[in-house]
Amino acid sequence: MALSKKYGKIYLLPCEMGEQDSSRLFPAFNAEIAASVTYFIVEQIRSARRSLKKINPAIVIDNVHFAELNKHAETIDIDTLLQPVLSGHNMAIMSEAGMPCIADPGAVVVNRAHELGVHVVPLVGPSSILMALVASGGNGQNFAFHGYVPMKDERKQFLQRIEQRAKREGQSQIFMETPYRNAQLFSEILQLLQPSTKLCVACNISCEDEYIATKTIAEWRKTIIDIAKKPTMFVVI
Amino acid sequence: MALSKKYGKIYLLPCEMGEQDSSRLFPAFNAEIAASVTYFIVEQIRSARRSLKKINPAIVIDNVHFAELNKHAETIDIDTLLQPVLSGHNMAIMSEAGMPCIADPGAVVVNRAHELGVHVVPLVGPSSILMALVASGGNGQNFAFHGYVPMKDERKQFLQRIEQRAKREGQSQIFMETPYRNAQLFSEILQLLQPSTKLCVACNISCEDEYIATKTIAEWRKTIIDIAKKPTMFVVI
Repeated sequence: MALSKKYGKIYLLPCEMGEQDSSRLFPAFNAEIAASVTYFIVEQIRSARRSLKKINPAIVIDNVHFAELNKHAETIDIDTLLQPVLSGHNMAIMSEAGMPCIADPGAVVVNRAHELGVHVVPLVGPSSILMALVASGGNGQNFAFHGYVPMKDERKQFLQRIEQRAKREGQSQIFMETPYRNAQLFSEILQLLQPSTKLCVACNISCEDEYIATKTIAEWRKTIIDIAKKPTMFVVI
Repeated sequence: MALSKKYGKIYLLPCEMGEQDSSRLFPAFNAEIAASVTYFIVEQIRSARRSLKKINPAIVIDNVHFAELNKHAETIDIDTLLQPVLSGHNMAIMSEAGMPCIADPGAVVVNRAHELGVHVVPLVGPSSILMALVASGGNGQNFAFHGYVPMKDERKQFLQRIEQRAKREGQSQIFMETPYRNAQLFSEILQLLQPSTKLCVACNISCEDEYIATKTIAEWRKTIIDIAKKPTMFVVI
């Protein structure tokens, strides 16, 4: 069951999710790995430089090779991107926020790496999905993450479907919205879901002004919160 | 939207998942928090002592108060457990492995904490669920975790249902089994799922002998692996 030893490894290197203090986010090992790797596949070079400095301030960025992979880069040849690892160098994949391969195109690279027999090594780091889930009080043995909520027409159906899955299957339902549309989504949730349904709002996780609260929809209707433009996870439990 | 300030906070403190080196698992902040808290709610006192020493070897265990909360402890009064936090002390919840409130009864305490208006603070740590997912190459924008696979009669239906959800909804499906039954589950998966379905096997995550590979069922049928008794996550993508 051995993976190829002539190839390098691909590290999945988490980065910060906002303005958090690095000491809250990364184990010491991540700083070591970040300093030992010279070939990075990143979503955006500018933010990757900043993130690397947060992970390890001693890194000399000028020695680092970056390749960009994002939604505008569909024509990129994945095997060309992977050339360093196939030549025996270690590489790292970084997203713009939190864990790689969640909200970025990194999974395409990982898929190809598995086809080639390259060892993919996930590192520990902040995940607002998991942190919102455990802090919500919801079922941790059965949960689903849906990414961004669908737009207008499909949204009502989506919210009602996940409410049913939470109730019938006991499956916690996690989702998010582009931060500037949070307030709109929150008011739609309060209109559409049943008064007894429980909702967790987890906002600015790991930041100084972190706010995480779980209440019934009936209670939320009587609560004023300000989540506009703040990265927020919603959990229906 | 302020949470109560007269109460303490409840930290969700992750612990190790196996024989990993602590420097791979925990940010420095966790060691600070662990040393600052004296009231812990844990699944098992003996393993919690060991985990605390891994998180911060400088902790003086004799100064720590432990309360056990596990599946044998259904008669425990949650409000009594929460007495220290209601009196203004910070508390921490620890599981036996990885993130709290996933495979332990911590969610009950968190639920009550939210009812009382106590601030629940999730800390960063290893999650074999998320790490397996990102390393699998599966869809990170839509995934479900099902905990332990159901037993004999329901298992066939379960595996076929999640295979359909992976294909129809593009939702990555994560599940696990008690380690000593891994080999049996793996052979059932190979029999039941379609040859073109992709499966990731993520074994001993973050350990020296970590093994993570994604292949089609057809390819797995030609591969010999030894996952017996090793903690393993399975991801159908």
